[in-house]
Parts: sequence; C-alpha cells; structure tokens
Amino acid sequence: MGQTLTEKIIADHLVDGEIETGAEVGIDVDQVIAHDLTGTMAWLQFEALGLDEVQVEVAGQHCDHQTYQPDYKVSDDHRFLRSAAGKYGAYFARPGTGILHQVHKENFTAPGKTLLGADSHTPTAGGLGCLGIGTGGLDVATAMGGAPFYLDVPEVVNVRLEGELSEWTTAKDVILEMLRRFSVKAGVGKVFEYTGPGVESLSAPERTTIANMGTELGATTSIFPTDERTKEFFERLGRPGDYVELQPDDDAEYDDEIVIDLSEIEPLIACPSMPDNVVPVREVAGTSVDQVLVGSCTNGAYEDILPVAKMLDGREVAKHTETIIAPASKQASEMLARDGYTAELMAAGVNVSEATCGACIGAGHVPASDSVSVRTFNRNFEGRSGMEEDAVYLCSPEVAAATALAGEIVDPRDLPDDLADLEAPGFEMPERYIGASESDLIMPDEAVDDELVKGPNIDEVPLKEPMGADLDGPALLKMPDNITTDHIIPATQEVSVYRSNVPKLSEFTLKRVDETFAQRAMESDGGFLVAGENYGQGSSREHAALCPMYLGIHGVLAQSFARIHKSNLINFGLLPLVIDEETSDRIDQGDDVELVEDAAAAVADGKETLTIRVNDDWEATVRLEANERQRELLTSGGKLPHTREQFAQATEEA
Amino acid sequence: MGQTLTEKIIADHLVDGEIETGAEVGIDVDQVIAHDLTGTMAWLQFEALGLDEVQVEVAGQHCDHQTYQPDYKVSDDHRFLRSAAGKYGAYFARPGTGILHQVHKENFTAPGKTLLGADSHTPTAGGLGCLGIGTGGLDVATAMGGAPFYLDVPEVVNVRLEGELSEWTTAKDVILEMLRRFSVKAGVGKVFEYTGPGVESLSAPERTTIANMGTELGATTSIFPTDERTKEFFERLGRPGDYVELQPDDDAEYDDEIVIDLSEIEPLIACPSMPDNVVPVREVAGTSVDQVLVGSCTNGAYEDILPVAKMLDGREVAKHTETIIAPASKQASEMLARDGYTAELMAAGVNVSEATCGACIGAGHVPASDSVSVRTFNRNFEGRSGMEEDAVYLCSPEVAAATALAGEIVDPRDLPDDLADLEAPGFEMPERYIGASESDLIMPDEAVDDELVKGPNIDEVPLKEPMGADLDGPALLKMPDNITTDHIIPATQEVSVYRSNVPKLSEFTLKRVDETFAQRAMESDGGFLVAGENYGQGSSREHAALCPMYLGIHGVLAQSFARIHKSNLINFGLLPLVIDEETSDRIDQGDDVELVEDAAAAVADGKETLTIRVNDDWEATVRLEANERQRELLTSGGKLPHTREQFAQATEEA
Repeated sequence: MGQTLTEKIIADHLVDGEIETGAEVGIDVDQVIAHDLTGTMAWLQFEALGLDEVQVEVAGQHCDHQTYQPDYKVSDDHRFLRSAAGKYGAYFARPGTGILHQVHKENFTAPGKTLLGADSHTPTAGGLGCLGIGTGGLDVATAMGGAPFYLDVPEVVNVRLEGELSEWTTAKDVILEMLRRFSVKAGVGKVFEYTGPGVESLSAPERTTIANMGTELGATTSIFPTDERTKEFFERLGRPGDYVELQPDDDAEYDDEIVIDLSEIEPLIACPSMPDNVVPVREVAGTSVDQVLVGSCTNGAYEDILPVAKMLDGREVAKHTETIIAPASKQASEMLARDGYTAELMAAGVNVSEATCGACIGAGHVPASDSVSVRTFNRNFEGRSGMEEDAVYLCSPEVAAATALAGEIVDPRDLPDDLADLEAPGFEMPERYIGASESDLIMPDEAVDDELVKGPNIDEVPLKEPMGADLDGPALLKMPDNITTDHIIPATQEVSVYRSNVPKLSEFTLKRVDETFAQRAMESDGGFLVAGENYGQGSSREHAALCPMYLGIHGVLAQSFARIHKSNLINFGLLPLVIDEETSDRIDQGDDVELVEDAAAAVADGKETLTIRVNDDWEATVRLEANERQRELLTSGGKLPHTREQFAQATEEA
Repeated sequence: MGQTLTEKIIADHLVDGEIETGAEVGIDVDQVIAHDLTGTMAWLQFEALGLDEVQVEVAGQHCDHQTYQPDYKVSDDHRFLRSAAGKYGAYFARPGTGILHQVHKENFTAPGKTLLGADSHTPTAGGLGCLGIGTGGLDVATAMGGAPFYLDVPEVVNVRLEGELSEWTTAKDVILEMLRRFSVKAGVGKVFEYTGPGVESLSAPERTTIANMGTELGATTSIFPTDERTKEFFERLGRPGDYVELQPDDDAEYDDEIVIDLSEIEPLIACPSMPDNVVPVREVAGTSVDQVLVGSCTNGAYEDILPVAKMLDGREVAKHTETIIAPASKQASEMLARDGYTAELMAAGVNVSEATCGACIGAGHVPASDSVSVRTFNRNFEGRSGMEEDAVYLCSPEVAAATALAGEIVDPRDLPDDLADLEAPGFEMPERYIGASESDLIMPDEAVDDELVKGPNIDEVPLKEPMGADLDGPALLKMPDNITTDHIIPATQEVSVYRSNVPKLSEFTLKRVDETFAQRAMESDGGFLVAGENYGQGSSREHAALCPMYLGIHGVLAQSFARIHKSNLINFGLLPLVIDEETSDRIDQGDDVELVEDAAAAVADGKETLTIRVNDDWEATVRLEANERQRELLTSGGKLPHTREQFAQATEEA
C-alpha cells in the first residue's frame, strides 16, 4: 500500500509506536522554534533538564510578539532569550527581525523535516513539504533535549486542487474557501495534504499561506508536496541544497478526499468574529472601513506586500482609513525598501511599521470603538484585536489594498470609477531573496552570551516530586461546568508579563473564579480541584496546568476534561480524575479528599478505576484514562522530571 | 533703545500690558499645536467654549505619543481628535505622520509668528525665528478661541555664538554644552536669544535642535534670528513665501550675555539621570551599551538620521546592541527610503520604526534591567524610559551611531581600528523636502468629519460655577510638604488612558496620599485641601487642578505653592490660600473651614488677606496673592467659564 506524504515523513522519523490512524507514535524532531511569549518557559524548562546544548539540528528563538517592548519585563525576557540561545546553541533572531514562521521559512525550513514550534501557526512550513506542528513550550523543551515528540497519528485528508486561480483571487482565498466549506472544527485530528494538478499553479510562498491558515481549520498540520516550484523558491532563497523532492505515492490511501476547483473561487472575506464566517467580498461590499492592516505570518511576506505596493503606487488611501503595513520579516522590509516601494507606500499614506506580530495579537493598533478593521491576518476571534466588541474582517492583501483606497470594503473586480485603472498586480517573486538575516540572525557560533541573563522577573521553573503513595488534601475550589483556560490563567497583558515567573504568575490562578484561591492553595499542604463538565476548554496554554502544579494541587476531579488540557495536566504530573455527576454534587468545597489506594502504585499498574474517600466518611469511584507513557509521566512528577531523569540515565550509560 | 528679537515679536503681538521684564502681558497667538496626550482635553475645553471654529491662523492636532495604539481608549482619542480638528477647522496629522514639532516645522512654522503648543518642546520653532512656547491644554483651548495668551515678560539672555563647530561636533553638542555650563534650572523665566557670528555657521535645522532642547534649561523659549540660511531652508521646504528676515536691533539691550565659542566644543554626552549631567564623551568611553535609540523631536529629522545612515552603510551594529531608529516624521522616513538609506540601515541590523515619540516617553522599547541605553533624545530623567532604575545617556546622532557600531560608548574621534575608516559624515540638507504631507496631513478643507466622535471613555469637560458669597466645607485631606503633581494625578499608563475622561481620571486624585480621598470628596458638598510648603511642585499638568475642581474642592490652604501649579489652580477657579505654619499645625483633617468674608466680593475687590473660621471656634488670616486678571478668573469659576462668557458677550455685541 502506498504512503501519503504525511506517512512518509512520520515513518522517516518514527522512534516509537506504529503508524495507525489514532494510535500514539513518537517521532524524532529535526527543528524547533519558539517566540518571545512561549520561549522563556521553554528555555527555563530546558535549563531544568540539565543539558549543555540543544540536541536538534536547528533550534530558533524569535522575538516577534512584543517587539514594541512596552515593559522592562518584556525587554528582560528578550535579553534572557538571547542568552539562552547563546548558551545552549540556538540561533537568536533579534527583536525586529520578523515573525518566527516567516524568518524560519526564509532561512531554515526544509522539505522532509519535522519542525516543532511553540506557536499554533507552525504548519506554515507545510507549504515547503516540511511537517510543522504547533505545541506547548514543554514539548519544545524536551524535543530540544532530544526526546521524541508524541502525537496521535492523524487522519490524512487529500485536498485535491484542480484548475487555476482567476484574476484578483489569491492563495488566501483558497484557505478562506476551505474555512467557508469546512468550519473551524473540521481539521481536528487531521492533516490536510494538498495534491492534484492545481498544486503546480501555486508558487511555494502561496502554499505557505494556505498551510499557515490551515491552523484555523483546527488541523494538526497541512502539507504540500514539493516540485519544480519549490525548487525554484529554494534557489531564489539562496538555499538550493535544502531542496528535496517529496511526493505521496501514486497509490497512497487517504482517510478522506476534498476537491477544490481553484478556478471557481472568488475573492472571499471572513466576517466578524470567526475565521470560518466567510462570504464573497461582494456580499459585504460598501461597508465603511476605519482601519486596514496588512501583514502577519499569513500574508506578510514580500510577495504579499508587493501587490499592495503596486496597487497603492501613485495613489492615496482614503483619509478616514488608517492603513498600516507590518511586514512579516525585516528581509521583506529591506527588499521593499530597496525596490523603492517603501517610499511609495509612505507617500500613499501608509504607516509602515517595523516587522512584528503586533496588531494580530492585540499588541498595538487596537481598533477604536465601533470601528471596522480589515486585515490580511488569520484570526478575528472576538476581542483578539485588543478590544472586546470588535468588528474584524480577514481577506487577501489585494482586497485589503482596494479597501484602503476606496475606504470601504470592495471586491477588486468591482472597482469604483476613480480606481477603474487599477490592474490586478498578479503574483511575483523576487529573483533573489536578500538581506537582513546576516546581521539580525545571531547564529550559535556568533553568540554574544555564554551564561543565562535573568532579569528580576525571571524565576526558575518549578519541578514536581515523583508521585508518592499517599495523596490527600482538601477540595480547595469547587467549580461549575465549562471552566476555560482563560479562567485558570488569563492571557491579558497584566498577567502575560509574568509568563517567565511561575511563582508570580501562579498568584493569578483561577482568580477570575475565586480571588482567594491561590493564597489558600499556597497555605494548604496539597489539595484537589473539583469541576463539572469540559474542564480546561479553550487555548492550549500549559500555564493552566503548570500554575496549579506550582500551588501544590494533586489533581482535578471533573466530570469531563477538554482534550488538550487533560494532556497538559498529565504533562505536569496532575491526576485528571473523572467523577460522575452524583459524586460531583456530593463533594463540597473544603471537604477532605483522600485517595484510598497507593497512588503511585495504582497509576503505574495501569488501574483505570481508583477510589476516593471523602471526609473520612463516604467513598466514590473515579476513573483515570491514560496510556502507559502518560502513567509514567504522572508517577515521575510530570514530563519535565521524567525527561530529566531519562537524560541523566542516558548520560550515565554513555 | 533697540529691541531684542523676543521683544519685537512680543511687541508685534501685544494686546494687553506693557513690555517690562517680569510684568504680565497678553499676546495674540498665531498658531497652536497639540498632541494626543494633551489635545483631547484642549478640544473638550474648546467645545465648552461654544465656538464654531478656531480663531487662529493655524491650529494643528497631531497623534505622535501613542502611535502604537496599545488600547482602544488611545485609538478612540485619536478618532476624537480627528473629528475635533475636522469640526473646528484644525489640520489633523494622522498617527504615523510624525512628532508634532517636526511635522509643524516642515509645514507651518514661520518666522515672526507666535506659536503656542500643548507640549514643552514647542520652543523647537525658535530655530526658525518663531516664538514657540509650551503651555497647558487650557491655554491652547482659549487661544484657539481667540483669547490672548498671558505670560510674564521673560528676561532675554543673549547667547553669543562665535567660531564654528569642529569635525564630529554637532548642534546637539552646543545645547549639551549650555546644559553642562548652566544646569536645568538656569533658564527659568528667561528666553535664550542666539546671536553672533557663529549663528550663520549653523543651518536652520541645526538651530531647531538647539532651540528644542533649550527646554531642558527650563527656559520659556529659545530663539534664533533669521538669515540666508533660514531662507534657504524655507526654499527647500517649498515654502519660500513664509520666510521673513528677523534680527534684533544692533543696539538691543539684553538682561544677560553668554558667550559660546563653537570651535571649543567637543562631543558631549549627558549621563544618567539628568540632562545637565554632561561630560565629554571621552570620559565615559568604553561603557558597554545594550540599546541605541535615534530619533525624537530633538534629533529625528532627515538631517539627523542621514549621518547615522552614512556611518552605518555597509557596516553592522554590534550584535549585543539593539539599535532602533524612529524618524521624527514620515517625510523624513520617506526621503530616507527614497535615497536608499532605509534598506542600508536595515541591512546594518537597525530596527527601523515608524515615526513616533514612542521610546522617549517610555511608550515602547523600555530598556532591560541593568542595561545601558544611549539616545539622541532630550531627557533622561530617572524612570522616564519606562523603567525605574534606568541608565540613559543623551548624545548626538554621530556619537550614537559610532556607539552602535562599537557596542560601547565611543567618541568618534577615537574610533577603534576596525572602524578607523569611518569618516565624519558632516551636515547635509536635501535639495528639496518632499513627501508624506499631502496624504497624511488632513487639512481643514479636506476634513472627513463634521461632528465630534466620542468613544465611551471620552466625557465632557466639567465647568465650575462662578464663585459665590459663602465658601465652607471640611478640610478633606491634610498633607505634608512637597506634594508633587505626580502625587495629585500620576502620569502612569494606567492613569493616562483616562486623560479625556475627567470623572474617571478624578478617581485617581491624590490616591497615592490617601486611597479614600476621591470618594470622600465626591460625597462631601465642597471642601478644602491643606498642605505644607511647595504644594504642587513638578510637572505643569493641569489635571492636577482640574480633577480637584471636578471633585468640588474650593481651594488649597498651603504654606507655599509651586509657581505653575498655583497658576493652574487659579485657571480652574480654586483659591490658592497661603497660611502660616501655626495655622497649618492647628488645622486637622476633618475640621470645618469657613471663609468669613463674602468670598466673591473679597476676591473681586482685590483683598490680599482673608479670614478663615475653623470649627466655628477659632480664626486665622490667609493670604491671596493674585493680580486683577487672575481674580477675574477666580470669581468666574476659572479660565474656561470666564473665556466662554467673554466670547458670548463679544458675539452679542457683534
């Protein structure tokens, strides 16, 4: 039986398990990347592993989310990240170098490699035939140490592209069409593998736009085969040696198939406030627009901004429409400046920003009240712009440029009279990608630090002790259904500046539910959390498990768990114990909870049911659903102590 | 007797009083400018005046301090400012257009004019023979309404320049030399008027650097004569018609004279943490530097960044030295991009920012802990960078560029071997200043708004009732000596976002002294503040009087007042009453205080001593030092109701 491209890359990196859809496998990681919001914790965890240097081919640390450096704690994080990269052998991209996915694409992404990134848009690399997966900082830290990355083998969906895009329609419209048809949940547990005759009509950078925003489908990742178009891109990048031809077998078997006829796609736009709320641009044409933003890891490359520059050249954006362009990399910025386009963009009334994620995460250029913002970005979740009741639309650079000129949403096929001479700029790649990297990417052999530099806000990462026989303590907090990770650890600026300081960050744990919780937990000698259904839904942030761990929580008793948060609890050594409704009703906050069995032994022995005794009075059965590997993590005190122990043993044996 | 240049301009605009040093005069205002932190209140006050449009020749509203727009409240302020400019007939410079002083200089500053700016660096215009004075938003609002601006006629100091600057020495070093010799207090109540043969060796933009940073001497303003160099600058700006020759009379009499031999000045640097802590660069050479910032209203013009670009062209900044260039205007940015310098700066490892005040006020690029920052800016007060224990140095662009390359502070005359081929770039002006203004300056006749747009955070400005006969109430707060305006209304980000919302801002009033004060004041039907010596020292911010006024405070009983704050109290209708030490000791917080006389009548009649009765038990004499005009303001409820009344009368009479 032939293999899909995904299977080929997994097989090529397989170190544990068998490739069967849904089964867990461990794979070798070739490359890792992190950014300034996730990297600090990853490096603190790497430090705790006790290794001298990173064990992967390429490790990259970027500073792209907080380039404006609004607080000394952010600048201290950047300083720490440079020192960690220097000490442990990663490259360091200085603040202003650009967004990690774009900078890594320009310099390191390669076909056939596995790339683990502490950012959800790591699948960008799939446009170049690289298996890019987004995950938490702890997975990145252990992968940097050489440990395999574990994942459930995803379903592979064949997205067969036919035809060619018509004028004014772009790669962004392809992924918007996918979102329009299949929703933001369609990709959970899946890889979208693009095939078919339409693939060769798309250049490599266009493919990365599609793979990037596959994240909004909920997919594990997206991937394209490589071909002459990919080869051409690597040649122009000045990295011809990194090109490898990769195709699925002709008789590869897919779990599902989708057919997209590129020629039938028209200019699309995602309306507020969900990336799959997609309609043809014509349906919302005429909407007055206050702000246009061009950039992001989806559409911030040179090839994305060039059409905007061509469209704006010699014209002026509408006076009521603030237009900001933030290139995704300084290389893109430099090429645009060298070609004279930067001056023309400025003359057209554009505010040309430094290379940054910035506005995409609400760190700057927050829209005004009751205003409409049109963006080439990938997400328009309510409040992500930095304001709660926002009205954010997502579209292609071409639609954004036409909108900036017209001052209202416009399908470029229906331009108003005064813009009737505007021609479709088409797609163009530079002959040669040049610039910026030489001075702004500090390679390991040029590192300027050899010791870690920790500002006063940066603290060590806590390590949990291995699980003991006796687990008991009070039910410190009783919560209702649907507690989110935003309840557990909010993502607001006020809290986020403490992402590299677990003791301080932990003070905010579950504060939105109970102001007194963190203090009570610190004062208690261990304890449990009690919750209803769907505990831990929302983002994948691991701090929502790490902080309760720091506060001494043994485990969570809930009627059900959100998938990723459950995995995070296990990674940090906290027992995710399923209770029934009756038990949930019966336990009150403050009750004493005791695990009847020898905890460490029961978990290690694979017992799926355990018993709790409450207030030394009544008992109930609780369930622990975990595989063998997860049970090892639990008894070791979590993944960090477990991996640290493994590395120490390996060193002794060597 | 001949006139100084300052006297000539004052005489030319005199509408009230006589020109005698120290005497109060009222002058006509030709031009006004405000920025995003001061403009909101100025426009709300203008709205309260009830006029249809601004009465000055040119009014300009800029958005430069908060260009990163980190909060929707900031974006709402920008939106409101555009609408106010549109409705009332001011030009509006969009966020990203640049710093008010630079943009105004490029487009509107003209010799012989009076310019009032709601920013302390308004004296920049003095480099072009314009009398530029920084003041509070209320003065700007009433001036926009056509009211005269009142000031005490300053002493005029003749700063006689001789000789010419030597290689690697710049206009910045001239003003640093002034600060080194005369301290940050030397200029209080004075105008520095530059004369002598050295003037013609300085181009017009160089003169604006000197005039700009004269603010750090504490001066009312600084001014240069105009000549062929000025004329040349106006021709290159494309505004030859705005040039007027202006010179002091040959027999002008000055209050004091200083001689500066330009040829004796060497490269200088202000060390932490005061602009007058100036030493030769050589004295601190070798200090390792973590951050270099080029820009600001002092040194962010095209002519300031050009030498940096020339020095960095083909080289790379030190890897441990983050280097950020934020041009002072988009016109400067565009010209640098057009000349190819922007691309070279990026290639050299510089983070090229949008045009912004940004880092100069701690809004971004806050230094990391224990790091050294070298800046071409004008202030290095402790904490101004956004971090409390900062180490900020101030120098010329040339010294900053050499420092960025070397990674340590270096006098460019002592370059290390690997930079030995670096030549002094000298001073160069473009043949023609072009760009940006056309699309980014929205002139009154192109306004896109005709009604005010107020986000939910923007509230009306409160108006105080005229003073009545009976003034009594409790002593709501008793304070020690030396209460600063930072105690009264802090300038932190958390508080500053409410600068256009007086009710909300008032909740922070004196919170640093007593958390309960604002609430108690709101609940009380009027009352008094009691303080020791030097009440209200520090910044000139008028909110420190406006918010107590909003809370219903009748007046302040203090042993002495800081000069500017006393004037602000009067402007907002609050009585500044001087008490003796015995009275101060005797009054307790909570005591009932009653003015024995008919308050309005006593103030209007010019009574210099009044009587207070405390707890209906004992009496004391208090002093009111105020001139006739100030007494009119006090009885009218402050300058805003007073001016409003005057305008209403003028309209009736017309």
